[in-house]
Amino acid sequence: MDARAPITLTTDFGSDSPYVAAMKGVILSLDPAARLVDLTHAVPPQDVRAGALVLADVCRWFPPDTIHVAVVDPGVGTARALIYARIGAQQFLAPDNGLVSRLALRERPSTIIALTNRAYWLPQVSATFHGRDILAPVAAHLSLGVAPERLGQPLSSLVTLHWEEPRVTAGKIEGQVQAIDSFGNLITDITAQMLAGVPSGAETVVACDDHETLGLYRTYADQPAMTFIALVGSSGHLELAIVGESAAAMLGVRIGAPVTVRW
Amino acid sequence: MDARAPITLTTDFGSDSPYVAAMKGVILSLDPAARLVDLTHAVPPQDVRAGALVLADVCRWFPPDTIHVAVVDPGVGTARALIYARIGAQQFLAPDNGLVSRLALRERPSTIIALTNRAYWLPQVSATFHGRDILAPVAAHLSLGVAPERLGQPLSSLVTLHWEEPRVTAGKIEGQVQAIDSFGNLITDITAQMLAGVPSGAETVVACDDHETLGLYRTYADQPAMTFIALVGSSGHLELAIVGESAAAMLGVRIGAPVTVRW
Amino acid sequence: MDARAPITLTTDFGSDSPYVAAMKGVILSLDPAARLVDLTHAVPPQDVRAGALVLADVCRWFPPDTIHVAVVDPGVGTARALIYARIGAQQFLAPDNGLVSRLALRERPSTIIALTNRAYWLPQVSATFHGRDILAPVAAHLSLGVAPERLGQPLSSLVTLHWEEPRVTAGKIEGQVQAIDSFGNLITDITAQMLAGVPSGAETVVACDDHETLGLYRTYADQPAMTFIALVGSSGHLELAIVGESAAAMLGVRIGAPVTVRW
Repeated sequence: MDARAPITLTTDFGSDSPYVAAMKGVILSLDPAARLVDLTHAVPPQDVRAGALVLADVCRWFPPDTIHVAVVDPGVGTARALIYARIGAQQFLAPDNGLVSRLALRERPSTIIALTNRAYWLPQVSATFHGRDILAPVAAHLSLGVAPERLGQPLSSLVTLHWEEPRVTAGKIEGQVQAIDSFGNLITDITAQMLAGVPSGAETVVACDDHETLGLYRTYADQPAMTFIALVGSSGHLELAIVGESAAAMLGVRIGAPVTVRW
Repeated sequence: MDARAPITLTTDFGSDSPYVAAMKGVILSLDPAARLVDLTHAVPPQDVRAGALVLADVCRWFPPDTIHVAVVDPGVGTARALIYARIGAQQFLAPDNGLVSRLALRERPSTIIALTNRAYWLPQVSATFHGRDILAPVAAHLSLGVAPERLGQPLSSLVTLHWEEPRVTAGKIEGQVQAIDSFGNLITDITAQMLAGVPSGAETVVACDDHETLGLYRTYADQPAMTFIALVGSSGHLELAIVGESAAAMLGVRIGAPVTVRW
Repeated sequence: MDARAPITLTTDFGSDSPYVAAMKGVILSLDPAARLVDLTHAVPPQDVRAGALVLADVCRWFPPDTIHVAVVDPGVGTARALIYARIGAQQFLAPDNGLVSRLALRERPSTIIALTNRAYWLPQVSATFHGRDILAPVAAHLSLGVAPERLGQPLSSLVTLHWEEPRVTAGKIEGQVQAIDSFGNLITDITAQMLAGVPSGAETVVACDDHETLGLYRTYADQPAMTFIALVGSSGHLELAIVGESAAAMLGVRIGAPVTVRW
């Protein structure tokens, strides 16, 4: 059995973009046995923060040594570096614009390399599509066994975005809606660990904008349809949902909306 | 050559959902050589009936022993079972909520197993994403050769949804629009076999809501653009189409609309 | 290592269509080790010209001998032929309706075969889905090593669509918007080679509808947000963009809009 690690692709190109296919073609031209997996191509255009969140959330489900290629790159063609980073057991190829920084804040990268060695790029590099012309061929060479150190110069740190963390105070946690999934569930930045600080037996009130719900449920089907509930979701974050409906659509809530837990 | 059967994924997560990628990551972590194929992720949210129809329609095109993982699961985390079912030459992993029952009504499952053996699950199981935490690892173990019998306890039957069948009477078949494809063609529950009962030479009138067309055509291009026609489509069902246009959009027809064939 | 060439799929079925999955199932039933890659399924319904453009643009990034299966087929079931064509190092399977003609105008096909040998089709062929019943099994047989000559009768030419080429005159190039990408960038039919004819040092004005911009930039980030700029994009064509925004949405420009470069 060929135990090649997968190569995942995360972009803001939109579902079904031929730009994604061009990247896959480049990878397969160099490594015909590459195992390609789409992580998501639905990052909102040029939204580096959203890309950083989804990457941090999903990459941990992949096997050790997986190569995650991420392209959300409003600065393509400018002086921003392209980097290789090893974080825990996973490998990342991305522009150095904060796209892997959500993850890097959680766990310090063990290796960071600026991708400066043109031997692993396509012979011709456009000014506007480094995902295809640099990251894709570098991913293929990594998949074929090239050592990361050969890709360029070591760096000591990454460009890091600032992420406002929830404020945990006596009797209250204040966070925000961080993502909305395809069911319209509101996924917050408040984690199960933070909620573990709530005294057992305390009655909790969870509020988002001016909508409130009492207590935490275990799963979506614990209450009748149309009930507004809070629960810890599958990514380990507090979620707000309306049973059987889209909470985002029914409540008109957007990413960034304030969420508080009081007890 | 590795003759591993494919693993297909059918969900209501929406195209490009990172939840799909998480399931793929879990499968590849256990079976790096798994062959993953997306069946569809566009099942309307929590619409078990629509998921059951698409699964019944498409699974037969896959090789024997294909493992079809289906996740349309409004009851996740409740007492509903998760099941393995062998139906004909195909294998299914799904919640026991009717999702494979359209197919099971057509052909009796030869094996049904309740997935109760935690040895084949992820070590930690969330309350809200059993597709990732139970079905994905079980699919990987099956792909690696684990016998279905080891996955849990045998069951004698599945939860079965009621499907209203078309009524065939003297001179008339009454059915309904069962699906609408991406071209806007209206796919009915009336089959080619039912239409075989129409006497040869009889003039047929096909009606949907208050729109009528005479006779059955062989293919979409048999009439000029904008013509409303009926034909037997590629899934063996009666379809209504407007040549070169979307019948669903132009006629305002939805799933469930009544369709009659008279002669 | 298995060096099988990839099979790509290009259709107008829409993202996530189960019709795509049916084609993949047929291919994998015949060749379980086929390497499947989605090129795009977002060709506008029945828009052969748009399909021809995306195919011509993206296929060159794939390895030699890649099998590109393309299904944009408003005439399915009529007398139009289905063909195999070898163009340069790439192989194509498509209806003979112009779908590979954009590419064939650039480089003459070395082999064209009408797919008439039913030995390589599914045993039963529907009148409305030749992509699944003929092209998919033929692709699998090619992938397994069947010689193209065995697929049917040689043809001397393909059905060819007319493509209006940009007009290059003294001091002016007149072209049009040929595609709009997922960022809303306007991709024209004016190539870098045509622009190479602009005298160095000349001041250029690029206009689309009544919107004008001076000069050509190298990349999207060369100007502040909201600036309307022109540049040569990653496919080697002149592009018009609004930095950080969708030019298509903000300017209300559609495919076919006139674009001129003056100097």
